[in-house]
Order: sequence, then structure tokens, then C-alpha cells
Amino acid sequence: MPDNKERELGTNLDVKLDSAGLLTAVAVDADTQEVLMVAFMNRAALEKTIATGKATYWSRSRQKFWIKGEESGHTQEVQEIRVDCDQDAVVMKVRQKGAACHNGFRSCFYRKILPGADGAAARLEFVLQRQVDPADIYKK
Amino acid sequence: MPDNKERELGTNLDVKLDSAGLLTAVAVDADTQEVLMVAFMNRAALEKTIATGKATYWSRSRQKFWIKGEESGHTQEVQEIRVDCDQDAVVMKVRQKGAACHNGFRSCFYRKILPGADGAAARLEFVLQRQVDPADIYKK
Repeated sequence: MPDNKERELGTNLDVKLDSAGLLTAVAVDADTQEVLMVAFMNRAALEKTIATGKATYWSRSRQKFWIKGEESGHTQEVQEIRVDCDQDAVVMKVRQKGAACHNGFRSCFYRKILPGADGAAARLEFVLQRQVDPADIYKK
Repeated sequence: MPDNKERELGTNLDVKLDSAGLLTAVAVDADTQEVLMVAFMNRAALEKTIATGKATYWSRSRQKFWIKGEESGHTQEVQEIRVDCDQDAVVMKVRQKGAACHNGFRSCFYRKILPGADGAAARLEFVLQRQVDPADIYKK
């Protein structure tokens, strides 16, 4: 099989990293499938996640590993990891402790886009309630 | 409010693009929340998606707009778009016609990662059945 066919239809884990060495990681609630957050992993972060069962990302802004919940206690226990056809993205089904979002919402996707009428700019509407006061998350 | 606070907790759409001018777009089934695919959008692709209600991506490999289903007929009718806290990712709830994956699976995430025992390499296991023969999708 040519490389991409093997990658797409084979059974070897052979991730395709972008030019920054990263792949996209989506965390979803293991029960409801709700998307909780989207972040990035490098190869080592994915390997750590697989080995430990704790969602571990690569922070692009801080250029370091980031074990989710390490500071906040809002950990993600990984139940299953899926990889997509071209192996440049993973979806993790997780048990989320507390709030996935550092702003205190269950999911980072707490606003929906409202299209603007007659060429007006799109606006955002909050669709989730805060679960945790963010001031309480990181004050320890 | 400082810029990032307004972006995170305000009601203006103010997307944060990466160095390639892109943001991450996750398409989920509007009914089941199952993640169907992960791809990228530039600002214009997001605007087209908002304006037309048809999921429109930016193809990194082909460097062009890509209206999902344009060739295959497997369109994504967008019911709702959510944006995340720092506005560098969107989740779209879509009605998917046919198969989201060009390989004929309902979702691109048709394989799960099996951790290797005792240091062996991780393997993949198919967890979805093919829905459409890919040879039938693109032959028109």
C-alpha cells in the first residue's frame, strides 16, 4: 500500500504532524460526546496521554507540556482515543473533573455565533452557564 | 477589558488565527454530537460558512476553499456554530449527508488507539463500519 493508504486504512499508529510538529486534539465528554475543548499535542504529549491515561497537551503559547488539570485539579481521565483518517487529529473521550474551560465553563464552547442581519457583523451569545468561579480555580 | 478578556468573555466575534491564518473547525453530528471531522478554516471560509449555512473549509494541501460535499454530494448543513474561549476553534453542529469521511465512514474517527503492552507500539482498531464505498463517491 502507498504510505497514505496505509496511514488511512491500516492499523499502525503513524501520526502526521504539521510543520510545527503538532496534531489537533479534541476532548469530548465520554458520556454525552459534547466537545469540551480543542488543543494541540506533539508526538510526546500523545505518547504520554496514551501511557498515563491523563490528557496531556503541548502548549503553543508556553512551549511546554501541559497535563490538563495539573494546576486547577480539573483533570481529564482518558477513556478512549480515536485517530482520524489521515492521522493528524485525535478525539479523546474523557471523564472531566470540574470544568474543562479555564473560564469556569463545562466546555470551552460556551458561545454560539449569531449571524448578523443585512451585512452586520456576527455576534456571540452565551449558551452555557458558568459552573465554577474561575477566581477559585487558580488561586491555590 | 483587556483584549483577551473581551475576546474570551465578550460577545464580539473576533477570531484568533494561527501563523498560517487558520483556525480549527470541528464538525459534529447535530443530533448525536459525534465528532465527524476536524479541518481548518481561514477567516473567509468561516464567513462563507456563516453566510451560506454550508460547511466551507480551507484546504491546507490544495490551498483553496473547499465546500464540503461539493464533489461527493456529502454536504454538511450547519445548524449552529460555537466558538471557544480564545476564539481559535469552532465547533459546528451539522446535518451530514452521506459519509463525512472520504474513505466512506460516517466519521473520520473510525479507528481507536490500542496502547501497546510492555513498551510495544500502539496499534489501531477499526470501530466503525464503512457506510459508503469510496469508489462510488468520487467517480462522477
